[in-house]
Amino acid sequence: MTFLEMLQAAQQRNRSLLCVGLDPEPTRFPAGLKGDATRIYDFCARIVDATGDLAIAFKPQIAYFAAHRAEEQLERLVRHMHAAFPHVPVILDAKRGDIGSTAEQYAREAFERYEADAVTLSPFMGFDSVQPYLKYPGKGAFLLCRTSNPGGDDLQNQRLASVDGQPLLYEHVAKLAQGPWNLNGQLGLVVGATYPAEIERVRALAPTMPLLIPGVGAQGGDAVATVKAGWRADAPIVVNSSRAILYASSGEDFADAARREALRTRDVLEAAKG
Amino acid sequence: MTFLEMLQAAQQRNRSLLCVGLDPEPTRFPAGLKGDATRIYDFCARIVDATGDLAIAFKPQIAYFAAHRAEEQLERLVRHMHAAFPHVPVILDAKRGDIGSTAEQYAREAFERYEADAVTLSPFMGFDSVQPYLKYPGKGAFLLCRTSNPGGDDLQNQRLASVDGQPLLYEHVAKLAQGPWNLNGQLGLVVGATYPAEIERVRALAPTMPLLIPGVGAQGGDAVATVKAGWRADAPIVVNSSRAILYASSGEDFADAARREALRTRDVLEAAKG
Repeated sequence: MTFLEMLQAAQQRNRSLLCVGLDPEPTRFPAGLKGDATRIYDFCARIVDATGDLAIAFKPQIAYFAAHRAEEQLERLVRHMHAAFPHVPVILDAKRGDIGSTAEQYAREAFERYEADAVTLSPFMGFDSVQPYLKYPGKGAFLLCRTSNPGGDDLQNQRLASVDGQPLLYEHVAKLAQGPWNLNGQLGLVVGATYPAEIERVRALAPTMPLLIPGVGAQGGDAVATVKAGWRADAPIVVNSSRAILYASSGEDFADAARREALRTRDVLEAAKG
Repeated sequence: MTFLEMLQAAQQRNRSLLCVGLDPEPTRFPAGLKGDATRIYDFCARIVDATGDLAIAFKPQIAYFAAHRAEEQLERLVRHMHAAFPHVPVILDAKRGDIGSTAEQYAREAFERYEADAVTLSPFMGFDSVQPYLKYPGKGAFLLCRTSNPGGDDLQNQRLASVDGQPLLYEHVAKLAQGPWNLNGQLGLVVGATYPAEIERVRALAPTMPLLIPGVGAQGGDAVATVKAGWRADAPIVVNSSRAILYASSGEDFADAARREALRTRDVLEAAKG
């Protein structure tokens, strides 16, 4: 099964476009776990158990584990995701970007050590920084394309004189990913939810690729506009929400509150398909 | 002491522009250590001990440790570098690139967990992906600018229509780094050694910044041309060699052979100052 097929199966099974992002910050954990980095697994596993049947994917963000020496907890967490929800793919959010043998090491980290189904990557170093990940045929890779942070404009929104049609840099990335770089249909694109017109533009340039769309929920993107701009029946979008779900309650009911928020967001996204 | 001052002091003390890169691959270790990922620390510490008095900096590449569950060995290695050669700064080669609270976690990983003096970063997500690292006043950050791999052209060498003077993307990065992004003089740039003309161009745009130049040694860049293009008496260059030093011998004499190769490269770089 390819990564794209995994996504499509999870989308249908859970009737969901919602990606549950796991950005664990111990200082925001509920009482009993609060401030305790040795409990990252426990907190995240509760969130996984409460939301897995509502998700198209899980997306753990490795930085939050690495800052707390919690690599072993991340390994256990992904194993738990696969065991509890074998039909929900796991996207390791790592935004790696390096070449040659170094990229091979990062691919090994993501796919062999952490057993992720896909990884996020930066395209800045070009195709040979992406290629080593494509050697794992069942795995996927989402390339940063257009991000919705203020600095997203600094490079991504620059117009290129050197490429026919003078696209913006992020449009150039989308074209490369849809075309020459996508050897085995393993690639997807990361596109921020803040500007639906840009999601539409990326979708036009990359009609068959999955789009990973962060920024719904705590980051303020509009869920309905996002789905209308990006979703196609034959090309999944993966709409991430992290903090709005993880920290829906700071009380003992945090897992129940996470489920309510996930369900609410899942339903908003489903309804927006129209 | 700022990171720039640390580099300048190491340059003078060890009369060196040579950065010793640590990309440990257990399959390439000498007999006795070969294939044993639990001996990564032992191998690297021998290289550090053999070369530290010849180096302007050490540069461990985190991917090689992460692929082998060797984070704790990397922590010990950096502690050993600081203890054995307190005047030689440690650059964590991680090429991180993310925003907001995620970037804060990565900065914490690099500067607090691993106690690195500087880190490498990708500029693709813009200034707010760099800013969190600048909150550590004694630390440095090298931004990817122009890399010499084949795919380096895919984005970095595109000409921008939207910026005055139509610079190439990597020239735009150099200008941003030298100008508005460099709030406290903490930034440097990564520039590949393959094309000395491009090092010259970056140096013209970023006259006061340290340049981290990989690609000498096993990657084939010409050391003399690199120094002539990039070195200025008041702006250090940090010329990395990894595999040519690490794997100078596959025998029991590997540390002695590493020292000979480091000394040879150090002397070639020094002589090229002219």
